[in-house]
Amino acid sequence: MLKTFPETLVSQLLAGNRRALARTITAVENEAPESVEILKTLYPYTGRAYTIGITGAPGTGKSCLVTALTQHLRKQNKTVGIIAVDPTSPFTGGAVLGDRFRMRDLSGDSGVFIRSMASRGHLGGLARTTYDVMRVMDAAGFDIIIIETVGAGQNEVEIVKAADTTIVVEAPGLGDDIQAIKAGILEIADILVVNKADSPLVQNTVRALKAMLDLGHRQRLVAHHGQLMAQTDSTGAPEYDFREVPIIQTVAINGQGISTLVEAIDAHRSYLAENGIRQDRQRARLQGELIARLKETLLKNLLDTVPDETFDQLIESLLARQIDPVSAVQSLLNPQRPLS
Amino acid sequence: MLKTFPETLVSQLLAGNRRALARTITAVENEAPESVEILKTLYPYTGRAYTIGITGAPGTGKSCLVTALTQHLRKQNKTVGIIAVDPTSPFTGGAVLGDRFRMRDLSGDSGVFIRSMASRGHLGGLARTTYDVMRVMDAAGFDIIIIETVGAGQNEVEIVKAADTTIVVEAPGLGDDIQAIKAGILEIADILVVNKADSPLVQNTVRALKAMLDLGHRQRLVAHHGQLMAQTDSTGAPEYDFREVPIIQTVAINGQGISTLVEAIDAHRSYLAENGIRQDRQRARLQGELIARLKETLLKNLLDTVPDETFDQLIESLLARQIDPVSAVQSLLNPQRPLS
Repeated sequence: MLKTFPETLVSQLLAGNRRALARTITAVENEAPESVEILKTLYPYTGRAYTIGITGAPGTGKSCLVTALTQHLRKQNKTVGIIAVDPTSPFTGGAVLGDRFRMRDLSGDSGVFIRSMASRGHLGGLARTTYDVMRVMDAAGFDIIIIETVGAGQNEVEIVKAADTTIVVEAPGLGDDIQAIKAGILEIADILVVNKADSPLVQNTVRALKAMLDLGHRQRLVAHHGQLMAQTDSTGAPEYDFREVPIIQTVAINGQGISTLVEAIDAHRSYLAENGIRQDRQRARLQGELIARLKETLLKNLLDTVPDETFDQLIESLLARQIDPVSAVQSLLNPQRPLS
Repeated sequence: MLKTFPETLVSQLLAGNRRALARTITAVENEAPESVEILKTLYPYTGRAYTIGITGAPGTGKSCLVTALTQHLRKQNKTVGIIAVDPTSPFTGGAVLGDRFRMRDLSGDSGVFIRSMASRGHLGGLARTTYDVMRVMDAAGFDIIIIETVGAGQNEVEIVKAADTTIVVEAPGLGDDIQAIKAGILEIADILVVNKADSPLVQNTVRALKAMLDLGHRQRLVAHHGQLMAQTDSTGAPEYDFREVPIIQTVAINGQGISTLVEAIDAHRSYLAENGIRQDRQRARLQGELIARLKETLLKNLLDTVPDETFDQLIESLLARQIDPVSAVQSLLNPQRPLS
């Protein structure tokens, strides 16, 4: 393969070249040295795509739902980028990879680009790498970016939380309980989907979800929108109307309910835009990213000045209880002062 | 309440004063200003307690198991500190708080100290605060410290992973599936307990767990002990024998199987000690803590020099795509250079 300069790759990507897109994503996913420059160059072209996170337990039909949703969006002439994150757990790997297979219905459509990402082995963390891949797709001009993850593990929850609209998928007949509650992901949902709604058990699942939403409603508002609430506390009057989380029934395999789901997504999108919430969230996310990058850079700059031997000795002193962690930090920051 | 100086509090705590212990834990849990000095002073007295993490889905009888385990350890004349972390999710709060009630059987025993911790509202993160509370109990001289959490959410998983021995509790009859797999916590178990083993369904659960362990065994070794494996890769010969994860059946409510569980914990403890793994883990944990503290301190020192206005303007520039995140970091680190 010919070596391509980052700037060439970027200009090809911006011109709509799919091969350049694939190669750029690979560079970013592998955290290749050139990815820093690539992401810097692409950054001005980002911030335009609308992002949808889809999560739920294995067996809820997430991939099938992503496929049906994408087909619907394509009929509206929207281009769609899909990032499918494979699970971390070695115990659930097989089933989910099987699901991915269903997305083959989307192949051959130049308005769709699908990328699978393994959830292990990302130096800067899975959430950041996924976010960087999202940026690449965003710069490449996709109207909608869908991120699909199995809702297990905080790492994966962080990913979908970065989306503008988060959809949690549930299905009847996976046991007596609501899977999303067990996984601790019910509270991140902007929209709840009960897929496989042709099951005779669907009303039980809908009823259980409604009960849970009622129970959690007050706490959820406080917890989820804590930041926004804090802004309004001073005036006493809430600045936003908090919507109820809609519960949409779908049968993804035959497309039933998908248009209702798209309407719910559009309504949520309008809600975020009208109330300035989308901008607030983006601001908070960028601030979090800046802080995280600052920490990494500051640490790297400091450790570059500390001999490995000094650092290792300090760890041994900590282990032997000869120095405490707070003093250890001070000794690294003020190396001229002798250790007590 | 009279104001007590940190050094007085610490010397009372080291002398075995329970009231001083309770007040110290409160200061540490609330991240009170004096807690930095307190933890510094206590640090040399830490590192002696053996820590056991117990986690599992709601309904598996964790609190009952903790109670039975503690009663057994007390008969061996071991003192026990218990940290019970209440769940983050507003959807599961009630049930778990009910469980805690069962620990009342332990009240009145001066060799036992129980502390509940809420999982919300810890500035430095729940895992760090819990770890600090663990250190306080450790310095106070407890032989064993048990940390109990609901196995939902990465935060809580991080906590039990900090324990020397991690026990994942499962129970029959909670649905067709293994709860621990859904919660993504099966792979952190050093010991698996199937509680409520007087259920007629117990053999199904044990069989399912065994199948899962076999399936995950290879990946688990690589993933969980990746660091240790890496150390041995150079010689080609593994330095440690990896034990099979034992599956212990208990009926916590009547004490059945608890002595077998204690034997399994002792065997794991010996295994960790004989192979130097406990020390390796402590070293890795202290290194992680030092790095995290360094980052926080470096960030704080830097941000103290940056006017809030400058920082806020930078975020707005990021939001407007006038500057990219990497350049934004550079502009904060080199403020003399004008922004492009």
